[in-house]
Amino acid sequence: MNEVQSPNEAAKTLDGWYALHDFRQMDWEAWKLADESVKQHALESFSALRKQYAEVEAQQKGSYAQYYILGQKADFVFLHLRETMNEIGELERAFNQSAIAPFLLPAHSYVSVVELSNYMGKPGTDPMENPEILARLKPVLPKAGHICFYPMNKKRDLQDNWYMLSMDERRAMMRSHGLIGRSYAGKVKQIITGSIGFDDWEWGVTLFAEDPLQFKKLIYEMRFDEVSARFGEFGEFFVGNLIQEEAWDELFKG
Amino acid sequence: MNEVQSPNEAAKTLDGWYALHDFRQMDWEAWKLADESVKQHALESFSALRKQYAEVEAQQKGSYAQYYILGQKADFVFLHLRETMNEIGELERAFNQSAIAPFLLPAHSYVSVVELSNYMGKPGTDPMENPEILARLKPVLPKAGHICFYPMNKKRDLQDNWYMLSMDERRAMMRSHGLIGRSYAGKVKQIITGSIGFDDWEWGVTLFAEDPLQFKKLIYEMRFDEVSARFGEFGEFFVGNLIQEEAWDELFKG
Amino acid sequence: MNEVQSPNEAAKTLDGWYALHDFRQMDWEAWKLADESVKQHALESFSALRKQYAEVEAQQKGSYAQYYILGQKADFVFLHLRETMNEIGELERAFNQSAIAPFLLPAHSYVSVVELSNYMGKPGTDPMENPEILARLKPVLPKAGHICFYPMNKKRDLQDNWYMLSMDERRAMMRSHGLIGRSYAGKVKQIITGSIGFDDWEWGVTLFAEDPLQFKKLIYEMRFDEVSARFGEFGEFFVGNLIQEEAWDELFKG
Amino acid sequence: MNEVQSPNEAAKTLDGWYALHDFRQMDWEAWKLADESVKQHALESFSALRKQYAEVEAQQKGSYAQYYILGQKADFVFLHLRETMNEIGELERAFNQSAIAPFLLPAHSYVSVVELSNYMGKPGTDPMENPEILARLKPVLPKAGHICFYPMNKKRDLQDNWYMLSMDERRAMMRSHGLIGRSYAGKVKQIITGSIGFDDWEWGVTLFAEDPLQFKKLIYEMRFDEVSARFGEFGEFFVGNLIQEEAWDELFKG
Amino acid sequence: MNEVQSPNEAAKTLDGWYALHDFRQMDWEAWKLADESVKQHALESFSALRKQYAEVEAQQKGSYAQYYILGQKADFVFLHLRETMNEIGELERAFNQSAIAPFLLPAHSYVSVVELSNYMGKPGTDPMENPEILARLKPVLPKAGHICFYPMNKKRDLQDNWYMLSMDERRAMMRSHGLIGRSYAGKVKQIITGSIGFDDWEWGVTLFAEDPLQFKKLIYEMRFDEVSARFGEFGEFFVGNLIQEEAWDELFKG
Repeated sequence: MNEVQSPNEAAKTLDGWYALHDFRQMDWEAWKLADESVKQHALESFSALRKQYAEVEAQQKGSYAQYYILGQKADFVFLHLRETMNEIGELERAFNQSAIAPFLLPAHSYVSVVELSNYMGKPGTDPMENPEILARLKPVLPKAGHICFYPMNKKRDLQDNWYMLSMDERRAMMRSHGLIGRSYAGKVKQIITGSIGFDDWEWGVTLFAEDPLQFKKLIYEMRFDEVSARFGEFGEFFVGNLIQEEAWDELFKG
Repeated sequence: MNEVQSPNEAAKTLDGWYALHDFRQMDWEAWKLADESVKQHALESFSALRKQYAEVEAQQKGSYAQYYILGQKADFVFLHLRETMNEIGELERAFNQSAIAPFLLPAHSYVSVVELSNYMGKPGTDPMENPEILARLKPVLPKAGHICFYPMNKKRDLQDNWYMLSMDERRAMMRSHGLIGRSYAGKVKQIITGSIGFDDWEWGVTLFAEDPLQFKKLIYEMRFDEVSARFGEFGEFFVGNLIQEEAWDELFKG
Repeated sequence: MNEVQSPNEAAKTLDGWYALHDFRQMDWEAWKLADESVKQHALESFSALRKQYAEVEAQQKGSYAQYYILGQKADFVFLHLRETMNEIGELERAFNQSAIAPFLLPAHSYVSVVELSNYMGKPGTDPMENPEILARLKPVLPKAGHICFYPMNKKRDLQDNWYMLSMDERRAMMRSHGLIGRSYAGKVKQIITGSIGFDDWEWGVTLFAEDPLQFKKLIYEMRFDEVSARFGEFGEFFVGNLIQEEAWDELFKG
Repeated sequence: MNEVQSPNEAAKTLDGWYALHDFRQMDWEAWKLADESVKQHALESFSALRKQYAEVEAQQKGSYAQYYILGQKADFVFLHLRETMNEIGELERAFNQSAIAPFLLPAHSYVSVVELSNYMGKPGTDPMENPEILARLKPVLPKAGHICFYPMNKKRDLQDNWYMLSMDERRAMMRSHGLIGRSYAGKVKQIITGSIGFDDWEWGVTLFAEDPLQFKKLIYEMRFDEVSARFGEFGEFFVGNLIQEEAWDELFKG
Repeated sequence: MNEVQSPNEAAKTLDGWYALHDFRQMDWEAWKLADESVKQHALESFSALRKQYAEVEAQQKGSYAQYYILGQKADFVFLHLRETMNEIGELERAFNQSAIAPFLLPAHSYVSVVELSNYMGKPGTDPMENPEILARLKPVLPKAGHICFYPMNKKRDLQDNWYMLSMDERRAMMRSHGLIGRSYAGKVKQIITGSIGFDDWEWGVTLFAEDPLQFKKLIYEMRFDEVSARFGEFGEFFVGNLIQEEAWDELFKG
């Protein structure tokens, strides 16, 4: 058995805005059968909601992004960042009570909070005085051409138990992991959100890129890295295409 | 193989009130389509039930709390504590037969009993004569701003088998575990319920806090502790926001 | 690797009546919307079925018990014992064709046969000449205040492989296991049913008690015993309250 | 690590007719609500299909059997053997397009091909010149009183990896396994179907017996055999009672 | 622990067209109940879509194939290859908005990209100047009699961890694996698609053959190869029969 060092240092994370990944399935059949006036009302209420999301983003009190999901797992994902969990709850409720909700059925969701680990932190500095770090904790969600989302755990399986490693071992592995990530700078943007206590996995990873092949290249290269190879446990993967505001009309005609 | 000591001492738990975690999904679509008189009747019957729950709590014969759940797993959780399993059953049945039930569909549930382990107990004392312990076995559910619920097992996986450890090993680990918990005093309240024989996991953990980040910090810090790192197995996590009584009207308008 | 002894002796079980655990979910909504005459007809057909079950029990050709299940997994469980698998099939079909069936939807089921292992058997005696054993193979189902049901396997996981142990090792462990069980005599009644070839787990365990806490105490204490600790694999747990015949009217009003 | 010998010999199987296990759930509610003429039409189309299945069997171009399944997993299983996968596909389509299909909903299915392993084969002989072997590859499905079906894999789990054993080790274990099977001759008939590349498990096992207890005895005894104990991985088990042709009328009245 | 070599070389894959495997369940009941004009409109819109798919293939801007799936997992699979992920998304959307979509319900899907690994690559050559390789990256989907599809991972389980092997070990095993594949040349065509970051498994394998038994033989033989035996993890298997264009009329009559 490894000697377990005090985990306190590693357990200190920096936490920013709360995040909701809200995956929805379009009920195309109900939409086709709906009266024109019902559709009109639904589209207006949906449009009003999106305007509100954009305003919150403009006021730097949160952020919003919308993507079309590939395959049958979902049709859309709506991403929201907010200062508090209460705002996330109210936002969900407002959506569910709106006239568009009956056509956008629940498909999957993820609740988490933007997180920076302190594996990379420099001792003796206060990260919350670092404007770059503050910007990463309360980010504007990229509107890149493509999105990739997946949840993950650090494995605890007999001798492959991340949480039984020493802080030094973990820090060394995370550093090597980070180097791969950095080599994709300019190609892939990444937002890590922590979800221990909030949802079924320990972290969510949300990637943004103009070329979706970069998602595959980055994750595949990382998989050979010991942190992923021995300790990474991955959930469902979702990949999507950006939805431009003006595309909604096209989507909802029919 | 470890020498297995008599488990009898460890297996003696102190058990208090029975608990039902009743997670429900709002059928917003049915609600929107319902007649005004049907809605009115449903709201009245729901209000009458909640009044009853509050009375039981006032008479110290049980306790009740209500939270809005984040994400798509459920919309609400209703927590109930009662003296007997028969009362839990009757309470469920009364809810299902009420006029609000068709709009609050089953989403998940958990059946358990408030439990104190005796790992911490002082030998030679009768815990049931300790008023602090009695209060913890029949607690008033906190009405804190946020709730976190998850079920868990102690692992039995080859060399990571909690139930093959000696009483001394288990006691030592639980003590260290408890120290972390205690360092969150004032920030997080915790109710442990046992569910062996009652539901699919061995325990339920229900946490209450004003700041939901404390859930994440506490559970993450504990995860580096050997009890969790090597022996903790966790189920679904639910997180929620407190529902004030006056909020129901707002929720059910629309 | 262990030397595997002839398993034949252990594989010889004593088998009694076939068992069906039939878990059902009440469709409260359909019930509320049904016409009074439809309800009346449904209740009469249900009552006739239960009368029939009681008669079979009175004639000692089978047995029947009915419990209200806690939580959302099911509302009721109907337990049936019968001499043959054909009778079990006919009983199911008669239920499904009855007027009550549309209101009692399938939720879960378990098919098995009452079984006594021969780990405890005395060599040189014919168990089928022992009236006590015969009574345990064709039991009258207890009508205790509470029921607990769960299916289980013996693990086959690398070095924790029950089926690779010698007969002597298995017999010794089962004896110690039985001692715990016996210490609950008078508090918990237990019926073991075998389901290899009939359903998805190897055994079903059905416990009956007046005090449901005894289920938890018994199973928790056993969990420290090597048979359970190293070799027990458990499925879903169901716990319930006895339904008195006269309670059905109350249940189905509303 | 074991030295891996050329697997080619073991990988050579003898393959016969394609098999479809088609499990169906009766929609009793829809049946009860259907018009008499709709039911009549459905029964006639179902009867015509069964006549066709019997003719194919009479012409030795395939085989058919029908069983009532116990418990809630399914109500019926229809077994079909055919010369080609195209015939299996057409048979499915014809069923789905028939007037009975709306009342017999999909519950589960299994696609495979009758297979004889060559572990027992005598070197230097051509099995396809052996009429007994040919009969086993294109069998008439037994119409025994009871059926048992389950899918299985050979495990590949660290040191318990069937596919890393040498041909000699595998052959020796399969021989011992076969001896147990042979001791049930006259009591249990067994059809092994291979499904690698066709369905989610590697093999399907279909057993037929007049006394269903023999399924349990056979499988339990085999479980102590090293092939099953260390290397057997089992899926869902289905058990059923034979449906006599004349029983359909009784089943579909009501 | 193995010394981990730079994975960069192995992680470099050649990527071609994006792929969508779109599995659909026919709603036979809805089809039977639909008005003749609705059916007519649906068939015309479906026919127009297929014409479009064929044109894309003729213009070498993508490819299309259609198969009937055996068993109850799905009725049909529609395979699409396209230059970009945006085209895949638009194609999905057009299908969902078409008049045939309400009758072809989602059953399963897989998102991936045609991939050639570089384990076989000759050092010092640029594969993208090799016309044979280019043709394999942007292939015309075979219209063989039968299809087989399954997703797979390389295992990361304690000492059976593919991603902790050295490049040399992996290359040697992949070479032996490829030799088995090559021995099926002329019998089975194979398209490997990568799905890391796009869907829940690391790769999809799509096989085409005139004789479906060749799927089973190939996969079974490979299973004894160390790459599959120790490191292969497999998902659901789908097998199907080719749908000729003229067969749709027959399928949709009834």
